[in-house]
Amino acid sequence: MIKLTPTPLTKAAFAPFGEVIEIEGAKHYGINQGFAERFHDLAKLDTGADGGETIISIFLGEPRPLPIAIKLMERHPLSSQAFYPLQDRPWLVVVAEDPLSPSSLRAFHATGKQGINYARNVWHHPLLVLDPASRFLIIDRRGPGKNLEEVWFEDGVKIELQL
Amino acid sequence: MIKLTPTPLTKAAFAPFGEVIEIEGAKHYGINQGFAERFHDLAKLDTGADGGETIISIFLGEPRPLPIAIKLMERHPLSSQAFYPLQDRPWLVVVAEDPLSPSSLRAFHATGKQGINYARNVWHHPLLVLDPASRFLIIDRRGPGKNLEEVWFEDGVKIELQL
Repeated sequence: MIKLTPTPLTKAAFAPFGEVIEIEGAKHYGINQGFAERFHDLAKLDTGADGGETIISIFLGEPRPLPIAIKLMERHPLSSQAFYPLQDRPWLVVVAEDPLSPSSLRAFHATGKQGINYARNVWHHPLLVLDPASRFLIIDRRGPGKNLEEVWFEDGVKIELQL
Repeated sequence: MIKLTPTPLTKAAFAPFGEVIEIEGAKHYGINQGFAERFHDLAKLDTGADGGETIISIFLGEPRPLPIAIKLMERHPLSSQAFYPLQDRPWLVVVAEDPLSPSSLRAFHATGKQGINYARNVWHHPLLVLDPASRFLIIDRRGPGKNLEEVWFEDGVKIELQL
């Protein structure tokens, strides 16, 4: 049994995997006649490969049974993929360095005011939420080509997320 | 005095101005081993003109004094611009058909589960929120060229939003 313990999500810790989308520490400036502050350019979408277009979708996520077992990972060879929570509730992010193996996994606690943008080709677990009917805004790609690789760990490998 | 009365935001009513980003009425399918539903392709970003890139930002908006006076409109000749509320609270959308005039204005009530994507070149008012520190996720463009046109109504023209 491998136990994976999440650490707080920070820009520095997540840098090898993509961008953290948050106000905290971001450059910002006043707009709209002083009635809004713009926290600018928190993530860049990388979706144009092979004629791809950038689209917005919504995911409605459900919690997995506890303890959460990490059985598979996926990645998108043709695009980045951004997730932002639409309720102010914590959630979980599991990524892995390449080459993928149980020991290359990393887990993060995200707050309800933190989104992430997985860089292209970064191994990540599907959405992990703690509350029923958790809504997320997703910005990713539509277009030609196969943009999903999925790898299941072998049956003998048991990986459990420690919350 | 021109009084502008908002109507409920619907995909049909907003179609001349862009897309409504909402689960309601959208095509969807199961993903993530059954632990999420994807409401797919709710809006397409149109940001690539003249070497533009698609970026994610956060706006922190403040309410304007009531009654809300509509004094100016803006548009982005090089890109669409998407707004999605990060708290489940109503907000307001004011757009105009081209050519812009006080009589071409249209106002909509949006719910806290509705975002919008202004099509390129569509006249719109800057963000209008009803609650202090209202956070929105913005997906728009960075890149070369002038991507903002702003028009102020003449001093004698008084336009007021009826809530």
